[in-house]
Amino acid sequence: MNTFNYRLVLRVMGILVLIESAILLAISIIPIIYGENDVYFFTLSAFICFIFGGVALFLGRNHSPYIGKREGSVIVTFTWIIFTLFGLLPFYLSGSIPSFTDAFFETISGFTTTGASILNNIEELSHGMLFWRSMTHWMGGLGIIVISLAVLPVFGVSGTQLFAAESSGPTKDKIHPKINETAKRLFAIYIVLTFAETILLKFGGMNWFDAVCHSFATVATGGFSTKQASIGYWDSPYIQYVISIFMILSGINFSLYYFGLKNKWYKVRENEELRFYLITLLVFVIIVAISLIDFSRVQSLQTLEEAWRNSFFTVSSLMTTTGFATVDYMFWKPLTWVILLIVMLTGASAGSTSGGIKMIRVVISIKAIYFQFKQLIHPNAVFPIRYSSHTVREDIVTRVLAFTLLYLIIVTLGILVLAISGMGFLESIGGLITCLGGVGPGLGLVGPAGNFAYIPEFSKWFLSLIMLMGRLELFTVLLLFTPAFWKN
Amino acid sequence: MNTFNYRLVLRVMGILVLIESAILLAISIIPIIYGENDVYFFTLSAFICFIFGGVALFLGRNHSPYIGKREGSVIVTFTWIIFTLFGLLPFYLSGSIPSFTDAFFETISGFTTTGASILNNIEELSHGMLFWRSMTHWMGGLGIIVISLAVLPVFGVSGTQLFAAESSGPTKDKIHPKINETAKRLFAIYIVLTFAETILLKFGGMNWFDAVCHSFATVATGGFSTKQASIGYWDSPYIQYVISIFMILSGINFSLYYFGLKNKWYKVRENEELRFYLITLLVFVIIVAISLIDFSRVQSLQTLEEAWRNSFFTVSSLMTTTGFATVDYMFWKPLTWVILLIVMLTGASAGSTSGGIKMIRVVISIKAIYFQFKQLIHPNAVFPIRYSSHTVREDIVTRVLAFTLLYLIIVTLGILVLAISGMGFLESIGGLITCLGGVGPGLGLVGPAGNFAYIPEFSKWFLSLIMLMGRLELFTVLLLFTPAFWKN
Repeated sequence: MNTFNYRLVLRVMGILVLIESAILLAISIIPIIYGENDVYFFTLSAFICFIFGGVALFLGRNHSPYIGKREGSVIVTFTWIIFTLFGLLPFYLSGSIPSFTDAFFETISGFTTTGASILNNIEELSHGMLFWRSMTHWMGGLGIIVISLAVLPVFGVSGTQLFAAESSGPTKDKIHPKINETAKRLFAIYIVLTFAETILLKFGGMNWFDAVCHSFATVATGGFSTKQASIGYWDSPYIQYVISIFMILSGINFSLYYFGLKNKWYKVRENEELRFYLITLLVFVIIVAISLIDFSRVQSLQTLEEAWRNSFFTVSSLMTTTGFATVDYMFWKPLTWVILLIVMLTGASAGSTSGGIKMIRVVISIKAIYFQFKQLIHPNAVFPIRYSSHTVREDIVTRVLAFTLLYLIIVTLGILVLAISGMGFLESIGGLITCLGGVGPGLGLVGPAGNFAYIPEFSKWFLSLIMLMGRLELFTVLLLFTPAFWKN
Repeated sequence: MNTFNYRLVLRVMGILVLIESAILLAISIIPIIYGENDVYFFTLSAFICFIFGGVALFLGRNHSPYIGKREGSVIVTFTWIIFTLFGLLPFYLSGSIPSFTDAFFETISGFTTTGASILNNIEELSHGMLFWRSMTHWMGGLGIIVISLAVLPVFGVSGTQLFAAESSGPTKDKIHPKINETAKRLFAIYIVLTFAETILLKFGGMNWFDAVCHSFATVATGGFSTKQASIGYWDSPYIQYVISIFMILSGINFSLYYFGLKNKWYKVRENEELRFYLITLLVFVIIVAISLIDFSRVQSLQTLEEAWRNSFFTVSSLMTTTGFATVDYMFWKPLTWVILLIVMLTGASAGSTSGGIKMIRVVISIKAIYFQFKQLIHPNAVFPIRYSSHTVREDIVTRVLAFTLLYLIIVTLGILVLAISGMGFLESIGGLITCLGGVGPGLGLVGPAGNFAYIPEFSKWFLSLIMLMGRLELFTVLLLFTPAFWKN
């Protein structure tokens, strides 16, 4: 086996940090537009990125072209960490977020498109900082789409092979041209969705700044808002419906848009994940809406619409793992909390910006369990598991079951770690599930009306790791902790 | 395929109800000994059992000897229901438990060796009622040992095939003699454990009545006590240690005792489940004990011993799914609640009277997940999963993963149902996990200091079903709800 190609890794990291440098430099235009005095912090951050990126690029010169599984996993995982370490600079240098831990937490929460915040007063931040905060979502969302649909399948370290095998994803022998081609198309779809939502939000009365920032956070299923009250600030049904619908659209596998554009509608129609995702969403929206209606007295049509809308927005927001809020669901019945925790666990589709277990794995796990019953009844018959009219290989079924189980084990052990760190019972459960799934708000003090400012220092670092693990589908990060992975 | 052999099922049910009749009649000696006036209710219950049992036996005459999977599943599931329906008679007829729902809940909690109670004042009950209540545990525990180790493997509906294949269990071609032989040996081990504990408890200062009742509840890992304060009533370290050790012994696969008696010690030594069970238990006891020590001040050796003992007793009690209590862990830190919930989920060994997922499945699930990492690193190598120095077949690994996942899905959906029924968040989580695992105490109002008296009527019936499902390893009960199961 080849020795670890650290030069190549350095070179890739160098390029990525230079890209971050360019974006930070471009963002310094925002304080100029709004006449704010923090241009300096963006240019300084861009400069620091430029120096580090340049040095990494230089040290990584003359790299061999070999790129194996280890290099792939390290690049993917460290991309997020490096982006966070440099991305926190504007917040930290300007004193907008004075604690390094908090700045790290906020920034990785941005890049992993989680949206969990430590900010007590979001409106205090300058336009530049708010824009950069929303931008981390947008970059993270784009990154995960490109990585999960174009890059990861090549290294076989993704949980989405199943899906990849079905899409016209890249094959091992011709990596680069295919990665580029696929990535460009995904980028185009991503831009179109962001642009469409921005226009619709502007039309609904938001200013351009808020419209762009919220579109960034929606398409990335991130959840950072520019307002402390999140979407509740606008109190506009139109805006709530627009954002709900774009959250749902962003929870769809992006390659389905690609098939749609190519007129391969049968691919969309036969996609079981999409069907299951939309049906599950609808069922839970209806249950929650009913639980919000007070049947003991006659309701006006308006209060019924409000119950429907609040449920529709909240369930969509949490299932797509966005995390925007219009109401504080901690005032709802505990039964809704359980439903909200369930949709935070499942998440939306693979190949979207959403997090969680992903619907495709939920569908296959349920089929595998049902299959056990059929097998018990007819022990000698063979029942292949079919998904979207293809037969799923036995070893992939095992992998999906192992993933889903590992996810739930990490949830349980993670809650234990949070509880040990001193967080309350509700906070540990809600905080862990929301961060692992990349959602944002949890339960109790870390619920939609609260934030993560007051949790212990250790919990913030632990949840940062959890956000990263969740974003990278567990295996990619956990592999790095596996000794066998590093043996030659 | 044969039509459903209802005559055979009736006959088996008839025999079982006649056995219950005989036991109820035998128990009427208790009120006579203690000079209590409820002999009548036991003899009346015995008489009702006798009539119904006799009629069933008569209707089931001339049955064909055919017994298939459907007959097996129906017999196993209905045995528990029928036993409960007749077993609640003394409580209900005498007015000791005036509500039918409560009487059903208490009795099925007894037979499934759960130990969740609706009684507010246990000491109010007569000696006869208390003895019958403990006896339901003992019968249920014996039943599950015989069914899971001797009967179920024959029908292929058990989750313990893996284990069964390894033990000298019965084979399909010679059912009856083998079932009887195996059952007799298990019965003997069960009696010896009960007898030994009774003597040791009597020696520690309990009276014979309490010693016998608590031995019944320990060996069955049930948890009903004759005192409202449970084991806390005695305040005797000796009694607490004796019960702890017998709970742990009762959580061991009973066939290991059998191998031990046959001098096949290598079978005991190579058993991974036993090793994993004892190590996990020890680790959690130590963590909880440390969390109970107040490090801010110097402790006497006595308070350290007390912390150790309270942790040892509580973790053993909940991990073996017994449910005895000496202290109210709701006053402990939330971190201990998470640990206690984890051990309630895992349970102890397959082939014991304990409930939960069972350690053997936990071990194999963890290995299967680790195997995925190895597979990612070396995609072309083959890594067979080994357990107790045997290779585990791929389809059994899938079955184990599917079971563990199904268990966790039922936990989540069950919590949702309890929350919908109006129970609180803590109560829904604790109540569901404790009843599915066959433990007893949950969290909050249904914690060790509370009981299930005040939960909604619907929740009581739902939790009764959950106790039954947990006891019969999910598949046996759920199969009955599968339409394909009933198709010819």
